[in-house]
Amino acid sequence: MDIALIVGYLASICSMTSFVPQVWKIIKTADTAAISKRMYAVTVIGFALWSVFGVMRMEWPIILTNLVCFCLSAFIFVMKILPQGRRSQLAAKLDPDR
Amino acid sequence: MDIALIVGYLASICSMTSFVPQVWKIIKTADTAAISKRMYAVTVIGFALWSVFGVMRMEWPIILTNLVCFCLSAFIFVMKILPQGRRSQLAAKLDPDR
Repeated sequence: MDIALIVGYLASICSMTSFVPQVWKIIKTADTAAISKRMYAVTVIGFALWSVFGVMRMEWPIILTNLVCFCLSAFIFVMKILPQGRRSQLAAKLDPDR
Repeated sequence: MDIALIVGYLASICSMTSFVPQVWKIIKTADTAAISKRMYAVTVIGFALWSVFGVMRMEWPIILTNLVCFCLSAFIFVMKILPQGRRSQLAAKLDPDR
């Protein structure tokens, strides 16, 4: 049994779920004031590069994690750079309770 | 030349620097309102697990990135859970311009 792979998948679950509350919070509040735009720009590029690294090493925990995180962080980045009106509109559209 | 290693180090630089603006913003503003506490709790655990995974695979880009990100995300998490007074105090102490 490959213990490193198990640790990798646990780490993968943490990395992926760590973005979900942030995405959820932005959908509920449409508030991105304390989110750093530069942080997310670099984050999105980073996840893209990690995905390429994962494919080159054929390490599935790395590939899966970084593809999912790429999509989630790209969403947060788009919400951050949208004007307030468009952001609120999109958040309302995505919020199942509204 | 190991191209995967180069991609890994580029990804590593992105992951590490992506946290710096967020850390900086929190030091300057002491504002963590839009930061998700749950996100950072899971993030900190995730970086710890990725560090272990990196050591098991002896992949230096993974080890370096995740140790640095572990420290930075742990700092953001601590700032988030501190009461406002203590957070402002600590931010003022760390801000070189104040």
